[in-house]
Amino acid sequence: MAEPTQRTPSRDLEGALIDAAERVLVREGLRGLTVRAVATEAGVAPQGVYNRFGSKHGLVAAVLVRGFDGLAASTRADDGTDATERLRSSGRSYRRFALAHPQHYEAMFGSGVSPADRAAASTDDLTAHASAAFDVLVTEVSRAMDAGVLRRDDPREIASVFWAAVHGAVALELAGITKTADPDTSYERLLVALTAGLG
Amino acid sequence: MAEPTQRTPSRDLEGALIDAAERVLVREGLRGLTVRAVATEAGVAPQGVYNRFGSKHGLVAAVLVRGFDGLAASTRADDGTDATERLRSSGRSYRRFALAHPQHYEAMFGSGVSPADRAAASTDDLTAHASAAFDVLVTEVSRAMDAGVLRRDDPREIASVFWAAVHGAVALELAGITKTADPDTSYERLLVALTAGLG
Repeated sequence: MAEPTQRTPSRDLEGALIDAAERVLVREGLRGLTVRAVATEAGVAPQGVYNRFGSKHGLVAAVLVRGFDGLAASTRADDGTDATERLRSSGRSYRRFALAHPQHYEAMFGSGVSPADRAAASTDDLTAHASAAFDVLVTEVSRAMDAGVLRRDDPREIASVFWAAVHGAVALELAGITKTADPDTSYERLLVALTAGLG
Repeated sequence: MAEPTQRTPSRDLEGALIDAAERVLVREGLRGLTVRAVATEAGVAPQGVYNRFGSKHGLVAAVLVRGFDGLAASTRADDGTDATERLRSSGRSYRRFALAHPQHYEAMFGSGVSPADRAAASTDDLTAHASAAFDVLVTEVSRAMDAGVLRRDDPREIASVFWAAVHGAVALELAGITKTADPDTSYERLLVALTAGLG
């Protein structure tokens, strides 16, 4: 998902392996994301993947870093004067990201990943990128408080409430068990209710 | 989870098999809920389980019916005069049910169950019980509209917005990836924001 930047040959190989891992994730889901499958996809020996990522967990972490970076880039709101609209727009982008990258989203936040597997794939680097993605929302919430459209409060706590709610709508939609007749309208109602209710 | 009612011997066996299935689900998760495991747990031959439930999917459906009945019973608000408080109380009970029955909750709504597996386990009976559980919330939302504490609107649509939001908070908490320092307080903030924002 990331845009290529200037890379050393070693970085190029690492990037190519993560590209291959993302294709495997999209095609086969998180359970299919094995060192062997990624090596085959990338046309290298499994040892080449182990050398770079240590294990399947290291590979998953590298893919998740891409996911969190993509989410962060998506949800950073466009500049605009209306703080309420910025926050809602960030919420809309969050859903668009999830619907466009359902396998990444499930791997990042889904309940199909056990806490043990989540802990095993966790690295300092991954934690930093995940925090940075959440911080995009915290920043939007802070701006909305500064603009007086959300009540003054701890921005991280209010961002966590906002996130929980949008995650729920997105998760039910991805699982195909939403109860609404029209997910677009329903999601918009949720964003309006949240910004109003936290305002 | 269901309270025993007067049963014929045949009903007794069915109930005992579902009891066994619930114990297997709690101990081993949905993936461990197989005909063989339930037969062993109940001390019967696998054929006894097949005769009663047809397949693993029939067994899962029977357990999910128990889950939805338990959720419906939990979230039916106590009688009270304050409609806002009734709705929030129903939301609190929803979370308590999920935290007390995480394996049931995951099987009912989790993203770890593929849409194909969900469809395979679906029966008319299960759909009816799942709808009845959602209708408890729809009824609470209708009452809140009648009392003038929620804006007049389609109660099913507003209930679906409310459900999505509380599901999100509960799902992140169960997955151990909530961003709040205090899930109790955060959930209460969400309920207050929703009832205010939809009011």
